[in-house]
Amino acid sequence: MTRAAVVGAGMTKFGVHDTPLQELFGEAAFGALDDAGVTTDDLDALYFGNAMSGQAENETHLGPRVASHIGAAGLEVQRFEDACATSANAFKNAVRAVDAGVHDVVLVGGVERCTPETGKDTPAMTRIFASASHRQYEQPTGLTFPSVFALLTKRHMHEHGTTEEDLAAVAVKNHANGRLNPRAHFGKETSVEEVLDGPVVADPFRLMDCCPFSDGASAVVVVSDDLADSFDAPVDVTGVGHATDVVPIADKADLPATQAARDAATEAYAQAGIEADDADFAEVHDCFTGAEILASEAIGFAPEGEGGTYAAEGRTALDGDRPINPSGGLKAKGHPIGATGTAQIVELTEQIRGTVGERQVSDANVGVAHNLGGDSATTVVSVLEGRA
Amino acid sequence: MTRAAVVGAGMTKFGVHDTPLQELFGEAAFGALDDAGVTTDDLDALYFGNAMSGQAENETHLGPRVASHIGAAGLEVQRFEDACATSANAFKNAVRAVDAGVHDVVLVGGVERCTPETGKDTPAMTRIFASASHRQYEQPTGLTFPSVFALLTKRHMHEHGTTEEDLAAVAVKNHANGRLNPRAHFGKETSVEEVLDGPVVADPFRLMDCCPFSDGASAVVVVSDDLADSFDAPVDVTGVGHATDVVPIADKADLPATQAARDAATEAYAQAGIEADDADFAEVHDCFTGAEILASEAIGFAPEGEGGTYAAEGRTALDGDRPINPSGGLKAKGHPIGATGTAQIVELTEQIRGTVGERQVSDANVGVAHNLGGDSATTVVSVLEGRA
Repeated sequence: MTRAAVVGAGMTKFGVHDTPLQELFGEAAFGALDDAGVTTDDLDALYFGNAMSGQAENETHLGPRVASHIGAAGLEVQRFEDACATSANAFKNAVRAVDAGVHDVVLVGGVERCTPETGKDTPAMTRIFASASHRQYEQPTGLTFPSVFALLTKRHMHEHGTTEEDLAAVAVKNHANGRLNPRAHFGKETSVEEVLDGPVVADPFRLMDCCPFSDGASAVVVVSDDLADSFDAPVDVTGVGHATDVVPIADKADLPATQAARDAATEAYAQAGIEADDADFAEVHDCFTGAEILASEAIGFAPEGEGGTYAAEGRTALDGDRPINPSGGLKAKGHPIGATGTAQIVELTEQIRGTVGERQVSDANVGVAHNLGGDSATTVVSVLEGRA
Repeated sequence: MTRAAVVGAGMTKFGVHDTPLQELFGEAAFGALDDAGVTTDDLDALYFGNAMSGQAENETHLGPRVASHIGAAGLEVQRFEDACATSANAFKNAVRAVDAGVHDVVLVGGVERCTPETGKDTPAMTRIFASASHRQYEQPTGLTFPSVFALLTKRHMHEHGTTEEDLAAVAVKNHANGRLNPRAHFGKETSVEEVLDGPVVADPFRLMDCCPFSDGASAVVVVSDDLADSFDAPVDVTGVGHATDVVPIADKADLPATQAARDAATEAYAQAGIEADDADFAEVHDCFTGAEILASEAIGFAPEGEGGTYAAEGRTALDGDRPINPSGGLKAKGHPIGATGTAQIVELTEQIRGTVGERQVSDANVGVAHNLGGDSATTVVSVLEGRA
């Protein structure tokens, strides 16, 4: 059942941006508004995501600031923060608001700046990212996010025989896709050999298994189902699931299951009335190569334990039978935290419209977005479909 | 029209708490759950507010953490941040969710630790608070929050003849009320003379015009109207308005108007089908004495320009005709930022139930909460009423 529609999508290039957050967000916001053919006067609300700018830039209460910058002050403007799942959760709330008749037209988006070029050195940003892990049980041990996902991935390797070559295949695929995406942070391909030759960051992850810190912004215009047909090329939102899991990691029942993702996918698919097999492609949260493998299983794109094999065999490639991360994913497109969730929605929208050029998934009519936060304790899964 | 009901309320004492955030929140959460006669098994979601703990404690993604601590992991858990209006906005979203039939039972609350005793020195916390002002135009000038509200208040004094004695009257009243509130940060009275003898913080504010940094947590259980009668002593939520205003201050059309508060109050009263005069009492965001005067006018408790006179004449006192801040307000009860919004809802609930003892407002059947964020760029106004 259609709950809402995306009628406009915009994003900056992900990479290095030495511009204030509100200007960076403005570029994505105006891109989405222009794409939808609306102005700020048509908006009822702005649902805004930002994860770390309190710590990274001494900026909080950013909602009214970015709204003021784009000429939308006065609206209902609110900020969401759910670690890396921040703007997917903003999207969920916007869909819910138009579905309930509270609003008709909502701008949703997020922004973040994380790169050393904007004054954020890597150790400092790594510590800031680690604020999403458990303050008493995990941070004092030095557990940063590469090691969080290394633990999850190591367990998957132990249980299912997933190999470092399988992980490398994810990086190779996503860099190949990202090279076709002009808005991706990285424009170069890589090889299994190059990945396996890289320095170890947190075993089993080497440098090329890890997504970059990126700057960027993304935004979409969400409207009620009733209004959708008055826009060009609306894309239906048929399901959005959101679930959490226990923190800290040591308390999780099954590390590589990423249970919140399974629960969120179940909810999203039930809303949409589909099975995983009905989806044509997915954007998933590949903050590390291992995370994509876990995600591909959690959303039902690969059978249990076979996510690595699927990647290695090319089944998740652009021309595979289960394409994952045609945008290049976090790995190659980049990961400006608060912007990542709605950037996935941008890619789904443009893939379903068939406007992405060389990286187009053929017959891309049903897309799934999987945006994960923290140590996998939050996940939002969304289903978008072409309007019949 | 009833949109939802509050059926449970809990909060910690506000003051100094050297306990982890999840434990502090747990005390308020279990207080609210016990008061409602429910357990975490009965919850559909947790809507959680925290403003500054990324910067103050290197803690983000706190939603799943506090949920895990109270045994509620797995639910839809999300964090809101809208500066000092953080948990009132969480409350708004919870009311909307049960009103729309998305959820039946939602726990809403917030937590914050800001005191020097927990390792946060005052200059550092002042800088952290200032992150809610404009990063490019205001922070570099040294504009911290005492001076933000000093500017707003000075303009009110200029336009309406409000005096420092009027400001002091607010502090005297709120300390008198706070002395009757066992959960207030400050348990002592003050006098006009003591306020006027204090050191200047930001002209016209002296030390006793300013609310303290506090630690604390608050929570309420929000249920759908349909379910309310199955609980003891439900209190109806009949309106919640939320509006924003332009940032930075220099762009605001009318400084002492605090336009977002007026817009939010108009929306809340319209939803509730009441006029300001129908309300029996209010909890307002008196981060500084001057802020209470502006708020009392913005929500229609005092005529334009007469907020100061109303305070000085005792009309906003517990036994006045327009009681404001019977809890002691931020000024005396304290201001653990992310907990302040739902703490106002706790006070409204308990006043309307008639259970607050010595600080009881007589005939307290309709209460208004005014929770402001940043330089007044966000305000949420809520109306609660006794169930007929």
